Amino acid sequence: MTNTNTNDPSEDTWELAGRTLRSRLIVGTGKYADGPETKACLAASGAEIVTVALRRVDLKAKDNLLSWIDRERYTLLPNTAGCYTAEDAIRTLRLARELGIADLVKLEVIGDPKTLLPDNEETLEAAKILIDEGFVVLPYCTDDPIVCRKLQDLGCAAVMPLAAPIGSGLGIRNPHNLALIIEQATVPVIVDAGVGTASDAAVAMELGCQGVLMNTAIAHAKRPVQMAEAMRLGILAGRQAFLAGRMPRRMHAHASSPTIGLIE
Amino acid sequence: MTNTNTNDPSEDTWELAGRTLRSRLIVGTGKYADGPETKACLAASGAEIVTVALRRVDLKAKDNLLSWIDRERYTLLPNTAGCYTAEDAIRTLRLARELGIADLVKLEVIGDPKTLLPDNEETLEAAKILIDEGFVVLPYCTDDPIVCRKLQDLGCAAVMPLAAPIGSGLGIRNPHNLALIIEQATVPVIVDAGVGTASDAAVAMELGCQGVLMNTAIAHAKRPVQMAEAMRLGILAGRQAFLAGRMPRRMHAHASSPTIGLIE
Amino acid sequence: MTNTNTNDPSEDTWELAGRTLRSRLIVGTGKYADGPETKACLAASGAEIVTVALRRVDLKAKDNLLSWIDRERYTLLPNTAGCYTAEDAIRTLRLARELGIADLVKLEVIGDPKTLLPDNEETLEAAKILIDEGFVVLPYCTDDPIVCRKLQDLGCAAVMPLAAPIGSGLGIRNPHNLALIIEQATVPVIVDAGVGTASDAAVAMELGCQGVLMNTAIAHAKRPVQMAEAMRLGILAGRQAFLAGRMPRRMHAHASSPTIGLIE
Amino acid sequence: MTNTNTNDPSEDTWELAGRTLRSRLIVGTGKYADGPETKACLAASGAEIVTVALRRVDLKAKDNLLSWIDRERYTLLPNTAGCYTAEDAIRTLRLARELGIADLVKLEVIGDPKTLLPDNEETLEAAKILIDEGFVVLPYCTDDPIVCRKLQDLGCAAVMPLAAPIGSGLGIRNPHNLALIIEQATVPVIVDAGVGTASDAAVAMELGCQGVLMNTAIAHAKRPVQMAEAMRLGILAGRQAFLAGRMPRRMHAHASSPTIGLIE
Repeated sequence: MTNTNTNDPSEDTWELAGRTLRSRLIVGTGKYADGPETKACLAASGAEIVTVALRRVDLKAKDNLLSWIDRERYTLLPNTAGCYTAEDAIRTLRLARELGIADLVKLEVIGDPKTLLPDNEETLEAAKILIDEGFVVLPYCTDDPIVCRKLQDLGCAAVMPLAAPIGSGLGIRNPHNLALIIEQATVPVIVDAGVGTASDAAVAMELGCQGVLMNTAIAHAKRPVQMAEAMRLGILAGRQAFLAGRMPRRMHAHASSPTIGLIE
Repeated sequence: MTNTNTNDPSEDTWELAGRTLRSRLIVGTGKYADGPETKACLAASGAEIVTVALRRVDLKAKDNLLSWIDRERYTLLPNTAGCYTAEDAIRTLRLARELGIADLVKLEVIGDPKTLLPDNEETLEAAKILIDEGFVVLPYCTDDPIVCRKLQDLGCAAVMPLAAPIGSGLGIRNPHNLALIIEQATVPVIVDAGVGTASDAAVAMELGCQGVLMNTAIAHAKRPVQMAEAMRLGILAGRQAFLAGRMPRRMHAHASSPTIGLIE
Repeated sequence: MTNTNTNDPSEDTWELAGRTLRSRLIVGTGKYADGPETKACLAASGAEIVTVALRRVDLKAKDNLLSWIDRERYTLLPNTAGCYTAEDAIRTLRLARELGIADLVKLEVIGDPKTLLPDNEETLEAAKILIDEGFVVLPYCTDDPIVCRKLQDLGCAAVMPLAAPIGSGLGIRNPHNLALIIEQATVPVIVDAGVGTASDAAVAMELGCQGVLMNTAIAHAKRPVQMAEAMRLGILAGRQAFLAGRMPRRMHAHASSPTIGLIE
Repeated sequence: MTNTNTNDPSEDTWELAGRTLRSRLIVGTGKYADGPETKACLAASGAEIVTVALRRVDLKAKDNLLSWIDRERYTLLPNTAGCYTAEDAIRTLRLARELGIADLVKLEVIGDPKTLLPDNEETLEAAKILIDEGFVVLPYCTDDPIVCRKLQDLGCAAVMPLAAPIGSGLGIRNPHNLALIIEQATVPVIVDAGVGTASDAAVAMELGCQGVLMNTAIAHAKRPVQMAEAMRLGILAGRQAFLAGRMPRRMHAHASSPTIGLIE
C-alpha cells in the first residue's frame, strides 16, 4: 500500500478512500482558543484532512469556525461527535448530505457522556446502513480486533481505534491490541483519540499504523501551534523509524539472541 | 540555558562546554557496515558532534574510519570505550592528548564486559583527575541521581546517564530516575545508550533532556540511513513537544482534575 | 457488597448470583495433563467454582473429566467455549439445560479462532435471549466499559472482562479500562483470561475486581499444582491489599504531595 | 541455595548470613502510629528479621520502640539510616557495637536528604572497612548490577537494591536491572525500599529475589496491620509462582512460539 523502500519522506504517500495523501496526521478543529489559533495549528500540523463536528457547525450559515479553514487546502471530514445511537448518527449524516457535505465521513457513536468511549455495537449498525447509502465511512471504535475486522468487512474505508479515551492524553494504553489490529488490517489503521504528546504519535506509527487523528493534545498544550509542529515531526519520525526497521531489543549488547519481544 | 519561548526550531540552541549547538543528537561512529554508510548516516542524523572510540582508531595513521568523517563539519568527541578502570581511561586520554586530540572527551569506564554497564565509582575517580588535568569531561554513567550530582559537582560539562544497556535498544527503562536527574541538573543531561527507536529519543527530550547520544539504534536498524533521519526527527519532535508543554493526563476528558502523574 | 473492615480473610465473602463465596478464584478444567493433575490443581487453588466447556464434556456419559471433579465441593460453571455466534451459544446452552445443567452459565462467544478474543456484539445478543429464558449469565467480554455497562444493564450476574487474550499470559494489558469498569459496576467484576502469574492476579484484586478466572496460567506452568497454590495466595494478597488501602505513590518520601496517579 | 522442588511452603527456607529463615519479608520499625501498631504489624507480617534505625533508638535506655519488639521472636537488624558518609556510618556502627549490638547490620549511606537515594560510592567504602572489622554487612544500594557485584565481591552477606526511592511506593521501576543483578548473584538479593503494595512484593519474588524489605508500604497504608498480612501473602504468592515456573508470554494462545520476552 505504501512505498516502503525510500529515504525520501516526500515519496512516502498513502491511500485513504481513493485519495493519495502525504500527511499522516489528521487533526480536529474543536477546543482552540479562537479562529486564528485554529488556522495556525492546522498549518503547523501539516494536515491534509481536518475533522469538523456536524453538531457544532452551522453548514448553512457563514460559520465562524469554517471561515478559518481554507477549503482549498484541507479536505473536510465531517464527524458525528455527540451522537449516542446509530439512528442519531445516521440522521445527522443524512441531513448533512442534503446540505452538501461530501460522502467521506467520520462515524462516531458515543456510549457514555462521561468517558466519551465509543459504542461499538451502535457503530457497527450505523456503518452498515451508511455504507449501503453510499457514504465512505471512517469509524471511531475501541482497540478491539474483532470490531475492527467487522468494520473492515462491512466496507469501511479505514478503522480508527482509540489509543485512550478522548481528551485523556494517556497515550497508547494497549499496544498489543493495536498490533493485532494492524496484523489483520486490509484497510488503513488510524489511531484516533488519546494521544497526549509527540512520542505517543511516534509510537503509533512505529507499530505500523497508517495515520493518527488528534485534537486535544494540540489544542490543550500550553503552546498549541508549537505542539502541532511537534506532532507533525513525531508522526514523520515514527513513520521513518517504522520504514527503517528498528534494531531488536536485547537484554544487553552481548545477549546471544534477542529475548525481549516487540510488545511491552 | 535554552531558548524556550520559540516556535522556530532553528532558534532553539543549547550550550555544551562553551559550544553553541543546534543539533541535540550526538552519534557514534562504530558498528556501521562500511565508510560510505558511516558518512551517510552522520549526514542524515544532522549531528554536529560524533564520538570516536580511541581504542578503535589509529590517530597517527591515515585511519579508514576517520577518513569518512568530515572534520570541518563534525566536532570529534573521543571516547574511552573499552577501558575498565579509571587508570586505563586516564592513560588512554593522556596518550591521545599527546597525539593531538582536543580537550573535550567522553569518559567511559566499563564495569562488565557482558552488559557494558558503566562503573560509576571508577568514573568518578577518573573524572576528578581528568578535570584537574584540564580535560572537559562528558561522563557516561548509570541513571543514578546521586552519581550525576557528584559528576556535575566535580565540574563535568554534562552528565550522560544511560537509558538502558549499550546495544540493548530497550529504551528508557527508568524515566523516574531521569526526571530526578533533570530536576537537579546544573549542566546538560544527555541520554547515552539504550535508545532503540525514534519514539525513545522523543521521550528523552520530552522528559527535559538536552540531548541524546546513540550508535547501535542507527547502525543496526535494517536501513541505517533512514533510521538516522528518523532519529533526527524524533529528537526535534520531542524537543518541540517539551517546549510546547503537553496537556495533562486525565482518566477521561470529563475528569474534574488531572489524576494521573507525569511519570509512568 | 463486601465486608471491607476486617483483617480476617475468612470473613471476607462476596456474592455471585445469590451464592455467598469465600474464594475469589475461579478456575478452568481444561489443558491439564490428566485427571489426577486436574483434581490436585483444583484443590490447591481453593476454588469453589470451576468452569467446564460444554463442547468438551459428554454430559450423558460417565465422562472422564467430570469424574475428577468433586461435585459436592465445586459448583460447576458450564461455558460455551468454542461457540462463534450467539445462535450457536444459545443452542448449546438450551441443549445442556435439557440434559440437566443448572441455570448459572458462563457465556463465551468467540470472534476469531486465532486470538480467541470475544465477539461482544454476539455476546450482547446472546445474553439478552438467555436472560429472558431464565439463565443466570456470566459473560466473557473485552475490557470495554460500554460493553460491560450494557451487559450489566441486560441483567448479567457479573461482567467478566479479559486481562489479555486467552492463553497469552500477558497479564493486565489495560488497567485503565478495568478501573473504569469497576467504577461503574453494579455487579461483580471478574477478570477472565490473560493472567500469567500470581502478581497479575494480585494486581486485578488491588484494582478492585471481585474475582479472577483462569486456566492456562495454572495448567501450563511448569508445576501446575504449585502455581494453583501461588494463585490462591496471590488473590488473597491482592484482596487484602485492596482492603488495607495502599499508600499513595510519590516521587520520593519528601515529595510535598502525591504526584503520581493510581494508573500506570 | 533454596529448596526449589517443593509444594510445601514451610519447607522453602533460605540462608542469610548463616541463619536459616522461613520468612522472606523483612520489615522496618519506623513510621507506625504507636507501639501497639508496631507490634501488631510485625506479627501480621510474619517477619523473622526487623530493622531498627540506630539513630532513632537509645540502645542504653529502656527505649519505647524496642520495648514493643519481642527479642525472642525477631532478629534485630540495626541500620545506619540518616548517615550521609562512610565515616558517619562506620562511627555509628562501631559505637553501637560497643553498646552491644550483634555483627549483622544493614548499611545505609544516604546521598541526598530529599530523595533518600543511596550513595553507592560511600557505601562501597564503608562496606570494605566494616567487613574488615568483622561486621556482617547487608548494604542498601541502587539497582546497579556493577555496584551489586562489587558489594558481593567485598564479602557482603547479601545485596539490597532498591525497587524505587524510600517512601515512594512506586514499585519495581526497573525489573531489567533486577534481573541482571539476580543473574550474577552469589549472595541473596533482597529488594529494599520502594515497594508500595502486595503485587509489587510478588513481582520481586517472581523475578527471583530471595526477600523483600519494606516499611512505609505497611506503616502508611490505611490499615497497616491488614497491609502487613497482605505483604506476607504477596511474598508467599510470588515465591510459589517463581518456584512453579510461569507459563511463557505469547501474543495469543495460538501463537506458534512465545514472542514476548520476560521483561517488560
